[in-house]
Amino acid sequence: MTDAISGAEVTLEALPLREDLRGKTPYGAPQLDVPVRLNTNENPYPPPDELVADVAEAVRAEAASLHRYPDRDAVALRTDLADYLTVSTRVVLGEANVWAANGSNEILQQILQAFGGPGRSALGFEPSYSMHPIIASGTRTDWVPVPRRPDFSLDAERAAELVRERRPDIVFVTSPNNPTGGSIPLAGLRAVLDAAPRIVVVDEAYAEFSSQPSAVELISEYPAKLIVSRTMSKAFAFAGGRLGYLAAAPAIVDALQLVRLPYHLSKLTQAAARAALRHADATLATVHKLAAERDRVVESLLGLGFTPVPSDANFVLFGQFADAPASWKSYADHGVLIRDVGIEGHLRVSIGTPEENDAFLEASKEVPR
Amino acid sequence: MTDAISGAEVTLEALPLREDLRGKTPYGAPQLDVPVRLNTNENPYPPPDELVADVAEAVRAEAASLHRYPDRDAVALRTDLADYLTVSTRVVLGEANVWAANGSNEILQQILQAFGGPGRSALGFEPSYSMHPIIASGTRTDWVPVPRRPDFSLDAERAAELVRERRPDIVFVTSPNNPTGGSIPLAGLRAVLDAAPRIVVVDEAYAEFSSQPSAVELISEYPAKLIVSRTMSKAFAFAGGRLGYLAAAPAIVDALQLVRLPYHLSKLTQAAARAALRHADATLATVHKLAAERDRVVESLLGLGFTPVPSDANFVLFGQFADAPASWKSYADHGVLIRDVGIEGHLRVSIGTPEENDAFLEASKEVPR
Repeated sequence: MTDAISGAEVTLEALPLREDLRGKTPYGAPQLDVPVRLNTNENPYPPPDELVADVAEAVRAEAASLHRYPDRDAVALRTDLADYLTVSTRVVLGEANVWAANGSNEILQQILQAFGGPGRSALGFEPSYSMHPIIASGTRTDWVPVPRRPDFSLDAERAAELVRERRPDIVFVTSPNNPTGGSIPLAGLRAVLDAAPRIVVVDEAYAEFSSQPSAVELISEYPAKLIVSRTMSKAFAFAGGRLGYLAAAPAIVDALQLVRLPYHLSKLTQAAARAALRHADATLATVHKLAAERDRVVESLLGLGFTPVPSDANFVLFGQFADAPASWKSYADHGVLIRDVGIEGHLRVSIGTPEENDAFLEASKEVPR
Repeated sequence: MTDAISGAEVTLEALPLREDLRGKTPYGAPQLDVPVRLNTNENPYPPPDELVADVAEAVRAEAASLHRYPDRDAVALRTDLADYLTVSTRVVLGEANVWAANGSNEILQQILQAFGGPGRSALGFEPSYSMHPIIASGTRTDWVPVPRRPDFSLDAERAAELVRERRPDIVFVTSPNNPTGGSIPLAGLRAVLDAAPRIVVVDEAYAEFSSQPSAVELISEYPAKLIVSRTMSKAFAFAGGRLGYLAAAPAIVDALQLVRLPYHLSKLTQAAARAALRHADATLATVHKLAAERDRVVESLLGLGFTPVPSDANFVLFGQFADAPASWKSYADHGVLIRDVGIEGHLRVSIGTPEENDAFLEASKEVPR
C-alpha cells in the first residue's frame, strides 16, 4: 500500500473550472436528521406493502440479467407511462409521445441540450422551480427571468406579451408553480403558447394535486411547441426511484434521443417504475388526503395570523416573517424541517401526514415572526 | 376520451433543434435479438445467484422508503467504491476521492460540463470511445481528434508533443483503448500528464482486464489534473445497473457537485451497486476466464488468417475485411451479433462464454472477407 493519497492540497479555486461556476455552491436542500421533514415536497405516505413486494420481485427478475445493458429506448416503461397519462388526462397517448429519464431534472436538461444552448435563451416566470435557471446555465442557455405578480400569480396576458417581446427559444411555465403553489388554467397556457416562437415546457411536477386540467390536452393543438414534463417523485411517492418523464409530439421525443446518454435508464429503474405504476391507484389515493390536509394547514395558518399563498399542490408558501432564515432555523430547532426558498418574508412547508402537520402547526405558534 | 393525439404531422426537421444536431442519428449499437450477442463488451457471465438475491433484498429494504429522496451525495456507495479501488489498486482512497453517476457516460458529461464548454476544447486519440466526441458536442466543447499510429497504438511522446501544441482544456486517454484494445503504461500517461495544461481524463472502463497498473497510482502526483473514470458495466457484470464512477483529488469531486443534477443516483441504484460490490470477488473471478478466452480467440483468428489487434480488454478488433459492413451483416445472419465500429476493414468482437466464442469462430470461417 502507498500512503493515503491526499490530493487535499488542491483547492477548488485552483482548478480550471468553467468561469460561471466559480463561487457557486451545489444545489440542494439541507438533508438534516430531524423528526419531521417537510422540506422537499415528498409524499409522506410510504409505499404500500404490495408495491414494495412488487418492486422487489421485479428487481429480482431483472437482476439475473444485470450483466446486460437495459433496453436503451425503455419502450415498455414508456408504454406504461403513456397508458397512465391516457387514463388520467383522457387524452390518448402512445409510447411514441412519451420519454423518460432519471428524474425530471434530466428530462429538462435533455430539452435544453436539444433546443437551447449557447446563443439561445430560456424564459421563466419567477419565483419558480430554481433548477430551471441552474439547468439552463449548465447547458449555457441564457436565462431570462420575468417576475410574477406580487401575489405570485401569473398574469397570462402580460406573460404572453413579454414572450412576444423577448422571443425566447424556450419558455418554462410551472403549473402548479413551485414554490408558490398556484396552477394556470388552459386559457392562460394557450395565451403563452400562441405567443411563444418555439418551445414551451409546462412543468407539471405537481399535476396530480391540481384542480386544473393537464396541459397534455393541448399537445394536439401545439404539437411542434409543447412539452409537458412530469415526475413520479411527488404524488407517486417515488422520489427515491428517480423517474421523470414527458409527453409531447413524437418528433420531440426523437429530438431528445439525439442528446440522451445511451442506456441512461437502468434495468432496475425501468422495472421498479413499472411496478410502481401497477400500484398507481393505491399511491394516488393519498392525493386526496394530502389535498384535504393542505386545506386544513392553510386554514390553521390563517387562524394563526399567517398569510399563506393559495396552493394547488402538496406544499404551501406562507409569510410573513421579519427574518425568514432565522424562523427557518427556529422551526428546525423545534424538530420541523421546512424550506427557505429565498423569497423574502416567506417559507415553504410540504404537506405531511396529519401528525406531521400538527407538529408543524404547533411549532408555528412558537417560532419568531 | 379525445381522439388519439397524432402530433405525427410534426417532423424532426420542423423543430427548432440546435443546428449541429441536424441530420444526426441517436448513438447506439443495434439491439437485435440474435442467439449470440458479442457487440457491447458486456461480461457474458450472469451475476451469481447470491448476488441476485442480495440485490433483491437490498432493493426491498430501500423500497419501503421510496417516497423519500435518496442520499444526494451517495456517501455509502462512494465509500464502498473507494474501498474497492484501494484493494484493487493498492492506492489508499477515501470517499472524498470518489464520485459516482448513472454510467460513466454521465461521469464524462459532468466532467465536460465543469471543465469544458463553449470556447474550450477536448482532445482525444482516435479511434477511441466514440461517446467522447459526442458528449463533448453535447456540452459544446470543441473536439480535437488526433490519430493513433496505423497499428492503433499510442505514441506517447508524439501524443505529449501534440498536447503541448494544441493546449486542450481536457485530454482523453482511454486505457485499455476501446475499440482497439491496447493499454498505455504509466510512463506514457506521465508523458501526457506532464504535457497537459489542464485536465486529463484516463478512461479505464476496461481496467480490470488490463495487465497495466491503474492510473489511480498517479493521482497523488497530478492531483489538479488527473481524473480516472471507471464503470461497473464491464468486468463487474453490472451493465444493466448503470453505475459509473471516478477517482480524483477531492477538489475535483467538489467541482462535479456544482454541475450534477441533484439526486441523480436513485436509492435503488445506490443499494444495488453496493450489493454488487459485496460480491466483487465472485464477479471479478470471471475476468481471468475472459482474458484466457480472449487469448484463445486471438490465436484462433490468427489461425484463420485474420489480423487481430493485440488486446488488453474483453474484446478484440480484427480484420481484414474488404467490406466490413457486409461482413458484419453476414455475422448477424449467422446468429452472431458483433460490432462495426466504423474502422475500415475491421470489426470488433466482445469476448463471450467459450460456447459463444466457438459460435463466433465458426461463423468467422464462413463470412465474406
